[in-house]
Amino acid sequence: MSTTAGQVIRCKAAVAWEAGKPLVIEEVEVAPPQKMEVRLKILYTALCHTDVYFWEAKGQNPVFPRILGHEAGGIVESVGEGVTELKPGDHVLPVFTGECKECAHCKSQESNMCDLLRINTDRGTMIHDGKSRFSIKGKPIYHFVGTSTFSEYTVVHEGCVAKINPLAPLDKVCVLSCGISTGFGATVNVAKPTKGSTVAVFGLGAVGLAAAEGARVSGASRIIGVDLNSNRFDQAKKFGVTEFVNPKDYNKPVQEVIAEMTSGGVDRSIECTGNVDAMISAFECVHDGWGVAVLVGVPHKDAVFKTHPVNFLNERTLKGTFFGNYKPRSDIPSVVEKYMNKELELDKFITHQVPFSEINKAFEYMLKGESIRCVISMEE
Amino acid sequence: MSTTAGQVIRCKAAVAWEAGKPLVIEEVEVAPPQKMEVRLKILYTALCHTDVYFWEAKGQNPVFPRILGHEAGGIVESVGEGVTELKPGDHVLPVFTGECKECAHCKSQESNMCDLLRINTDRGTMIHDGKSRFSIKGKPIYHFVGTSTFSEYTVVHEGCVAKINPLAPLDKVCVLSCGISTGFGATVNVAKPTKGSTVAVFGLGAVGLAAAEGARVSGASRIIGVDLNSNRFDQAKKFGVTEFVNPKDYNKPVQEVIAEMTSGGVDRSIECTGNVDAMISAFECVHDGWGVAVLVGVPHKDAVFKTHPVNFLNERTLKGTFFGNYKPRSDIPSVVEKYMNKELELDKFITHQVPFSEINKAFEYMLKGESIRCVISMEE
Repeated sequence: MSTTAGQVIRCKAAVAWEAGKPLVIEEVEVAPPQKMEVRLKILYTALCHTDVYFWEAKGQNPVFPRILGHEAGGIVESVGEGVTELKPGDHVLPVFTGECKECAHCKSQESNMCDLLRINTDRGTMIHDGKSRFSIKGKPIYHFVGTSTFSEYTVVHEGCVAKINPLAPLDKVCVLSCGISTGFGATVNVAKPTKGSTVAVFGLGAVGLAAAEGARVSGASRIIGVDLNSNRFDQAKKFGVTEFVNPKDYNKPVQEVIAEMTSGGVDRSIECTGNVDAMISAFECVHDGWGVAVLVGVPHKDAVFKTHPVNFLNERTLKGTFFGNYKPRSDIPSVVEKYMNKELELDKFITHQVPFSEINKAFEYMLKGESIRCVISMEE
Repeated sequence: MSTTAGQVIRCKAAVAWEAGKPLVIEEVEVAPPQKMEVRLKILYTALCHTDVYFWEAKGQNPVFPRILGHEAGGIVESVGEGVTELKPGDHVLPVFTGECKECAHCKSQESNMCDLLRINTDRGTMIHDGKSRFSIKGKPIYHFVGTSTFSEYTVVHEGCVAKINPLAPLDKVCVLSCGISTGFGATVNVAKPTKGSTVAVFGLGAVGLAAAEGARVSGASRIIGVDLNSNRFDQAKKFGVTEFVNPKDYNKPVQEVIAEMTSGGVDRSIECTGNVDAMISAFECVHDGWGVAVLVGVPHKDAVFKTHPVNFLNERTLKGTFFGNYKPRSDIPSVVEKYMNKELELDKFITHQVPFSEINKAFEYMLKGESIRCVISMEE
């Protein structure tokens, strides 16, 4: 038992006070974990687009002040009542969505969309009592997707914590908490390209590059990257992308360009932008008879997917995935092992590193499109 | 070798001279089979909606005079040059789509959409020489989908012929040439419901009932039939349908009705109407996390499938199928065996039987909605 167990911990956290304003490093109080909760010491956290999206709070419910952050690696400091699968000292990755192991989704072999702990971006408190575990001088500071990893200590539901190999370097595997697993899993768990097949990846940000990495690991013979920014191609080559298509370079729909490049279409496509037109292209660019398209990117709330139903009748499949179909507790430890045995490469995703005091630089790198992942070290 | 091999055969055929006018039994000349073709003696043929659709010729290219018919059972009379897998006397089912065994689709384990012999409803001649094998006093009569089974003898490409168990009763298994295999295969090959699962079937015509039969054979615990005609429910019970929903009985979308009946949605749905609104409902009524919807019904050429992409992101799958994903030559013989070993029930699909001379009655039964399948016996 740590000496801090059961006590309020005072530590540093980066607080988002208002939408779009730089985070401020503050001293916060972190309450002890309650029933089914654990308190984690965060060692490394990375910045993901979703943090930026909710920090900008354009078109969403603004929830402030809030502690953002959801890609991280840490160590269990103490556990609350009823926690049986974690103990102080365990190395863990907190995850923005959970696995209660009791609901129909958790009991299904196919789903990872836990009824109890499925991502909820509007909720800023813990589900046990509807309260925050963070405060500054008694005033609550809201949580973010149950993780709030931009803090030296955070409180997370046990169901949102993956216990991993303690030998895994947390400054690397922390990026498996969200984006990299999402893209990699979309390919290896859902699209499932076979050796020698052709794969198109729409959007070459972190998630798309992870999807390409999944295609590379699967032995795809051609990986066609699609992006509106041609500068991304050089970097994408490191992730197995063999050809590049910028839709702006053509006067016809990109699905037609890809069909011509591949004698009728690719075997698999993975859509990682969230743009509904890209989704339609990603579906329509797969080969009839066997093509499978997988949607990963999160669409605008008013988006409408439209296609001629004959595109389905001609034996194409369209699927969507959430967090790469990984169950956080059951499956993420094995993704860490893929890194450990050098099957999955992670280092190339980590383009920047900053100390916690310079966390706002991570936002700048992402907003300028310079970084894939910037890892923030909590210890200076 | 039959004595008719290499000779023109004079026989009876039911000729559609004009759109929507009763067929006329005529004496036709049937030329010998050319390269890669076989000539079949048809013993039994059934009437399918697709025959009626092209006989009515509403909104399609009218191709007349034509010999319709594509669900049938017969015996090989003679074979043309290059035919190696069939010989006179073989019991066969002609199929409206083919399997060349050479193209990318035939070589794929997933596709049955043969590049060479895929259904072509506009073509009225044989692919070898672009000519018809049927004539009346020298004037050609057009073929229909490469089968034209409303004739005592017909000529078919070898790739469109399934060689089956000679013990199988042709007056029963003839219905496996099209509709019944399409619906049954959509369930067992594509939707693949597991034992105990819930299945919705949209449209309770022959194809939908065959889809329900597939769900029954798969051990589904609940099979929800959806149709605008409530009179169909009693009959549907014989095919395993346990519950019935008529969308006209509700003020809300049928997908919401089904979600309420099933704690969030069915595990699988199969759409057999071709109506695009039914397609959207069939997709949106499957459970998030694991639901799979399969489109079977052929849509209007201007139809647009629309849905919110989040319905995919929540881990639903939408697939389409053609002829139940069966490869005609490789797979249909095993479907006949399923009937022979009493796994698949066919007799209940055959509600009417008429002699060839009364073939127009089969059209009447179908147009009145009285028949599921009417089998026409070529020998009076």
